[in-house]
Amino acid sequence: MSERQKSILDAAVRVIARAGVRGLRVEQLAAEAGISTALIYYHFGDRAGLLRRTLEHINEDAAGYTQQAAAKATDARGELELLLLLELQDTESVRTNSTAWGELRASAVFNEDLREPLAESTRVWVDEVAEVIRRAQASGSASPLADPLDAAERLTCLVEGLSERWLSGSMTIARARKLLRGAIAAELAER
Amino acid sequence: MSERQKSILDAAVRVIARAGVRGLRVEQLAAEAGISTALIYYHFGDRAGLLRRTLEHINEDAAGYTQQAAAKATDARGELELLLLLELQDTESVRTNSTAWGELRASAVFNEDLREPLAESTRVWVDEVAEVIRRAQASGSASPLADPLDAAERLTCLVEGLSERWLSGSMTIARARKLLRGAIAAELAER
Repeated sequence: MSERQKSILDAAVRVIARAGVRGLRVEQLAAEAGISTALIYYHFGDRAGLLRRTLEHINEDAAGYTQQAAAKATDARGELELLLLLELQDTESVRTNSTAWGELRASAVFNEDLREPLAESTRVWVDEVAEVIRRAQASGSASPLADPLDAAERLTCLVEGLSERWLSGSMTIARARKLLRGAIAAELAER
Repeated sequence: MSERQKSILDAAVRVIARAGVRGLRVEQLAAEAGISTALIYYHFGDRAGLLRRTLEHINEDAAGYTQQAAAKATDARGELELLLLLELQDTESVRTNSTAWGELRASAVFNEDLREPLAESTRVWVDEVAEVIRRAQASGSASPLADPLDAAERLTCLVEGLSERWLSGSMTIARARKLLRGAIAAELAER
């Protein structure tokens, strides 16, 4: 991806986090990114193409603040905790990404065009988490009885649910993190 | 609540589930409910008052298809499973309520006026679930080590996350129900 494409997608995430998916007009995005609308159409085709790439971009950007930090963990269990807990941080980039992701999912309930790209981006994230769970099992720090895919789908769903409660003011970030830690322990425990 | 108020709130839930919170105009609601806009203002004050009562109404309506059925369970553990699983049913009333609830939560990220009533409605739901978990513990069908409030917040958050994945087309309802059953087992297990 070129720097120009990246800066357009960064701007799209900011606009969605500020004004919602319905607030994302190509004209407004061009103003935010400081370029022409023609350049947006040149790089992303239509609005649907732009939204699809924006979803992928949120995933890749989140990987920047979760996977990189998680890779520094000393074992797969620690890596899993970081990978998930770092989705719940009160920093501007996490807040912006999580707001945009939640808004895109909420919009997909009403807008069928968003469903397939959202399902695909979700699958990529779930598979990453399942892979770390498998490694934790292989190293003996997670119960061999846990189903990695079930656990990964539940934990990522829970992250989405906790994130929405936090962003919508029903829960503090500290509480959300505590609850997520407990869920990871419950999912990976012997039983 | 009068029949008239109930029919206005039912109409508000339908309009939100169809057109989103931003699509809820008092004029449109009056047309949907077959009454005058003046009567809406008479019963609910302003739009904020209407949205607050709509949130409460979704909770009460959901209690109709979860608590009543759950009360028929033979023990508190069965009651808990029904209380949560019946939030994931592919029926028109559950789909409409869940769509409206998810939309109201997503809107609260952008609209501060919605936050306090949403947090309050969430608290009522969480407390109901925590209470059933306490009864399951008292009857020996749930581990005494589980923290009822932590478990209730996690399980209701997970219901919201699963519900949004289902409604946005990222997950089948059968898969969502299977994952929720596994989470209840993990939360209430001895460990």
